[in-house]
Amino acid sequence: MPSSPGTTPTPSPAFLRRFFRRDRFAALAGIRLVEAGPGRAVARMTLRPGHLNGVDVVQGGAVFTLADFAFAVACNSHGPVALAIDASISFLSATARGTLTAEAREVARSSRLSRVEVEVRDRQGAPVALFHGTAYVTKDSLAEVAARPPGQRGRRSGRKTAGRR
Amino acid sequence: MPSSPGTTPTPSPAFLRRFFRRDRFAALAGIRLVEAGPGRAVARMTLRPGHLNGVDVVQGGAVFTLADFAFAVACNSHGPVALAIDASISFLSATARGTLTAEAREVARSSRLSRVEVEVRDRQGAPVALFHGTAYVTKDSLAEVAARPPGQRGRRSGRKTAGRR
Amino acid sequence: MPSSPGTTPTPSPAFLRRFFRRDRFAALAGIRLVEAGPGRAVARMTLRPGHLNGVDVVQGGAVFTLADFAFAVACNSHGPVALAIDASISFLSATARGTLTAEAREVARSSRLSRVEVEVRDRQGAPVALFHGTAYVTKDSLAEVAARPPGQRGRRSGRKTAGRR
Amino acid sequence: MPSSPGTTPTPSPAFLRRFFRRDRFAALAGIRLVEAGPGRAVARMTLRPGHLNGVDVVQGGAVFTLADFAFAVACNSHGPVALAIDASISFLSATARGTLTAEAREVARSSRLSRVEVEVRDRQGAPVALFHGTAYVTKDSLAEVAARPPGQRGRRSGRKTAGRR
Repeated sequence: MPSSPGTTPTPSPAFLRRFFRRDRFAALAGIRLVEAGPGRAVARMTLRPGHLNGVDVVQGGAVFTLADFAFAVACNSHGPVALAIDASISFLSATARGTLTAEAREVARSSRLSRVEVEVRDRQGAPVALFHGTAYVTKDSLAEVAARPPGQRGRRSGRKTAGRR
Repeated sequence: MPSSPGTTPTPSPAFLRRFFRRDRFAALAGIRLVEAGPGRAVARMTLRPGHLNGVDVVQGGAVFTLADFAFAVACNSHGPVALAIDASISFLSATARGTLTAEAREVARSSRLSRVEVEVRDRQGAPVALFHGTAYVTKDSLAEVAARPPGQRGRRSGRKTAGRR
Repeated sequence: MPSSPGTTPTPSPAFLRRFFRRDRFAALAGIRLVEAGPGRAVARMTLRPGHLNGVDVVQGGAVFTLADFAFAVACNSHGPVALAIDASISFLSATARGTLTAEAREVARSSRLSRVEVEVRDRQGAPVALFHGTAYVTKDSLAEVAARPPGQRGRRSGRKTAGRR
Repeated sequence: MPSSPGTTPTPSPAFLRRFFRRDRFAALAGIRLVEAGPGRAVARMTLRPGHLNGVDVVQGGAVFTLADFAFAVACNSHGPVALAIDASISFLSATARGTLTAEAREVARSSRLSRVEVEVRDRQGAPVALFHGTAYVTKDSLAEVAARPPGQRGRRSGRKTAGRR
């Protein structure tokens, strides 16, 4: 049972930072991982014109992607691969420039589920969005994923969390 | 009162398609608007390596951005600018290739709020994600926004939906 | 493995209706189960003064309880005990009298997760609330629970879905 | 404009405690308001057999009702009537006995929207549920509602937040 507590070594912050460079959509959005540790992560995104929507404020998907990336690092930080099941986000204020910071904190964890809260704030510390995510903890490990070339999916790594009946 | 029903002319599908080309983050994600009409929208995203996350399945933020874009078109389709307040998403299955289609349908609308449901499906029609969004209807109109150069925010267009106290 | 597909016999509608009479909070709220079958349920609640809140419309908790009960029946309808992980609800209109009907439909199911959508409507068919729930499918079965006296919890039946670390 | 800041006197904690005795569904569920102040509330519910569901743990609707009641007090605490639009809840652990405490905190407020986070904990302080709610701030005031007999709705007090088109 590779995912049982104690048998998977907890990844180091350096491993987590290296591993999450594999996230190509976060890279496309200009997101960088600032801190990573057991059950926590901080990520940043400096707003550019490419993050704006039709009415010239930051696109909801860009803010979500920032929060979701911090959530992914926090819920995967113990070693086993965890995949998002549900997420909810509340958008509190709009912004169009400056740097946004997402801070993720795992608030509960069982053998199969991880719960993470993320706050997104602007440069002045004003809240921009609140995010809650639930992830399913699989039997794969980040180390196994890291050992294979990017783009090649393992047998068990699909987010087959609730396939069609 | 530019937003009161009857006084803002309902935008044409052609206007909506042209207007939403202003959404630069959706463009960055490779999302295209396929259909737009009163209270509805269909958008598509063909998966590329740039949409994948660290474990080689499509990033949650990419799926959210697709759904959120269809939501934005549907809740803005009547003329007044509507800004997202809350959204929730459930990820049903992972995928790594093919084309995803988001279909948005406004299920309720009052003078101030629009409620939209979005289904994201893969090429075979299998559900990938379910999304629910609530938007606040402002007194701005898309036509006013379209009349000013991109990147210049109007006085009232910020998503100042619940600023700090 | 009592929960593996094929080994737990699918409960009959009559068994489900009898089993869910054990839900004492739904009974307190005056909720009755109208239909139950694999992946679906219909429940009703006739509004009384006891369902109202401080401003004399139906309390959000009463509407949620109605939707949650229909969700519980739908996600437990295959035999294994399923426990709610996450739920989101959008309140579309207020009401103070008449009968509300909740219709639940399981939209996806894997070995461990069930996803259910519920619509709550008033007597005229107008939407009152939209609900989405995700449940975790345990290894317990409803039949095992039914065989023990009410109020006595089995070893595995607790909703220990993400306990404190 | 009775709801504009500064013109509605902020209700006293004593007024709020008295006002929310009008919530008959919370009373039915055995919920009591312990603290109330500007943007915050604490409520408690001592579990009884009547709060349990079919598998003998506390019903999700009972936990939601406790959280929703604390949310209602917090978002109405400034004077104007605020009505729930959206809520999401994550159930972290099951419980069947003891006293649950919900602590609500308004995290953002604009002229039209209030955002509230609620934590539900058991007697030992372990988290049982996390709740996020968004409310729409109306032009009615609690004082106007309090001046009319219970059960009689004012012209504007309906939660007509997004009626059918």
